[in-house]
Amino acid sequence: MTDAITISVDAMGGDNAPRAVIHGAYLALRERKQTRFIFHGRKEQIEPLLEEFPALKPVSTVNHCDTVIAMDEKPSQALRKGKNVSSMWMAIQAVKDGHADVAISGGNTGALMAMATFCLRPMEGISRPGIAAIWPTLRSDIIVLDMGATIGADARQLVDYAILGSALARALFDSDSPTVGLLNVGTEEVKGLDYIKEAGKILQQASGAGFTYHGFVEGDDIGKGTVDVVVTEGFVGNIALKTAEGTARQVGTYLRNALKANLMSKIGALFASSALNALRRKMDPRTVNGGVFMGLNGIVIKSHGGTDEIGYKSALGLAYEMARSRLIDKIGDSMQHFPIHTAAPSAAPETEAKSA
Amino acid sequence: MTDAITISVDAMGGDNAPRAVIHGAYLALRERKQTRFIFHGRKEQIEPLLEEFPALKPVSTVNHCDTVIAMDEKPSQALRKGKNVSSMWMAIQAVKDGHADVAISGGNTGALMAMATFCLRPMEGISRPGIAAIWPTLRSDIIVLDMGATIGADARQLVDYAILGSALARALFDSDSPTVGLLNVGTEEVKGLDYIKEAGKILQQASGAGFTYHGFVEGDDIGKGTVDVVVTEGFVGNIALKTAEGTARQVGTYLRNALKANLMSKIGALFASSALNALRRKMDPRTVNGGVFMGLNGIVIKSHGGTDEIGYKSALGLAYEMARSRLIDKIGDSMQHFPIHTAAPSAAPETEAKSA
Repeated sequence: MTDAITISVDAMGGDNAPRAVIHGAYLALRERKQTRFIFHGRKEQIEPLLEEFPALKPVSTVNHCDTVIAMDEKPSQALRKGKNVSSMWMAIQAVKDGHADVAISGGNTGALMAMATFCLRPMEGISRPGIAAIWPTLRSDIIVLDMGATIGADARQLVDYAILGSALARALFDSDSPTVGLLNVGTEEVKGLDYIKEAGKILQQASGAGFTYHGFVEGDDIGKGTVDVVVTEGFVGNIALKTAEGTARQVGTYLRNALKANLMSKIGALFASSALNALRRKMDPRTVNGGVFMGLNGIVIKSHGGTDEIGYKSALGLAYEMARSRLIDKIGDSMQHFPIHTAAPSAAPETEAKSA
Repeated sequence: MTDAITISVDAMGGDNAPRAVIHGAYLALRERKQTRFIFHGRKEQIEPLLEEFPALKPVSTVNHCDTVIAMDEKPSQALRKGKNVSSMWMAIQAVKDGHADVAISGGNTGALMAMATFCLRPMEGISRPGIAAIWPTLRSDIIVLDMGATIGADARQLVDYAILGSALARALFDSDSPTVGLLNVGTEEVKGLDYIKEAGKILQQASGAGFTYHGFVEGDDIGKGTVDVVVTEGFVGNIALKTAEGTARQVGTYLRNALKANLMSKIGALFASSALNALRRKMDPRTVNGGVFMGLNGIVIKSHGGTDEIGYKSALGLAYEMARSRLIDKIGDSMQHFPIHTAAPSAAPETEAKSA
């Protein structure tokens, strides 16, 4: 890998594709000149857009694919229809073939996870991939996973998520031994589900091998930034993420309404406008767009499907940083530092794994 | 029941008991003059406090109990030690015996639920009680349950929560047919766990019987107020609630910091101070304190254990309104309007029920 990072882009994924994707790539390139792009999708749609953003043209390749995966397609259908031919599959395949450092798509999450798992395969020693979110908190950004790659987990899979999440934290935050917490309904040892307690025991024993085990954390510990990595099962992680997004939007609306309440508050808002604009940028969900697929032999980033060019710019920036920080190598290191893992007993699953 | 509402209070529950409890009762009485109190707990601690708040004395009775349930006691231990003798148990017993209209405690949630279930028993036709939260949203307050009365649920239990939650919505919001949504990771029919899909089918068939079934909702629909009643399993509900609390606190801190950022923003904050103070009151978690135990033959309210007199005032006000609106009768009506329920097939549990 040279200094240049090549991002393999599913140009057809998401509600506003391919325009928002290409426009986002243009914005991302302005911030990171070393980026190269491979756009997978319909040539007749992509090429006119490259004409609109001529700075992109010399650093881009277009790989024509007719097949596009729909947002509501089931993963199994998508895999049958799209393997080897769809823009989503080809974006991933380019990473496998070594043509790109990282792949990105704003398409259907379930289909993307199914294709990425099928094409890149889970890393040796990892039972199941997860999706990690980078979550802004009062202390600093933290990692929360799984965001819904899989519904249901057992102790072994939570331990996998802890290994993957702490490798990501080390790659992103330059921390030698990030703290890891298990999301639970109470911090007392007695509480919670058996598989979480079992994972807690394994992590307690392994604490120090690339991470520091903190113990159980509760929902409000996420926003506080109590730990660097919050580990949870996918259904719960997805609900937590969306609930937090909804709450942030709700409080933002309260604030806007409060500042419009009367003449004095409107004057106040004018005086404070630069600080309030900074706050608005900080709370803009588009600036932290992108879920990181963890535990596969290659990096894949999922962008929000409904986002615009600003959201894609953020997700592409994240993809660049993931590749630059050699995330995959860091996860490999983690696996080596975690000999206890392969010997760890797996608790009986509390919930059955379901494909989404 | 006359116009006066008698609240049976565990005076010893919570971190700041009994002072915060008695002080809160004094504040609650100022807002609702028809309130009567029975305080259960250590006479030698309660009586001096009643001297401090003399307005309370004529409307209060003290029932001495020596035994106090600790915050970290396991439910089974608490039940063994506290049955018939603890302040928590006696607060519930007074409702059973008809001496009070509603009971309240800021003590250990698991112990309180165990005692309430043991003493009051689940209503006929309801398989398991739940804890409902009243959740402020962009549209209006809504109901979310279960907040962690039980970990794990099956389809039948989600349907129970829908019946209980819609009865609560009808009692609190004067709505004839509140809308009900099932919390899930996607709104498409294909997504999510089997027991949630199964519950969705039952609710679809029964829609109109005291509620309108909306379908699946996602985490961000809570803050939007998409439906009047959000139904979910207890572990997920608890994580969602605490994540939202954490996010609201986080955004509030961002805002305070933004307004201190520079001289202009400080001046702006002065101009907008009345609107910002109103916003602060609106976001004060103490003003929406209180989980409602649903599905038992009597009403029990759980206050946050760590709150102060303002929080107790809110929880006591909620208790008063629950009793005044004849919640129990409304749930009874719901059960009668829901003949499909008793015949509903129960899906196999996805997760096993664990006592917390």
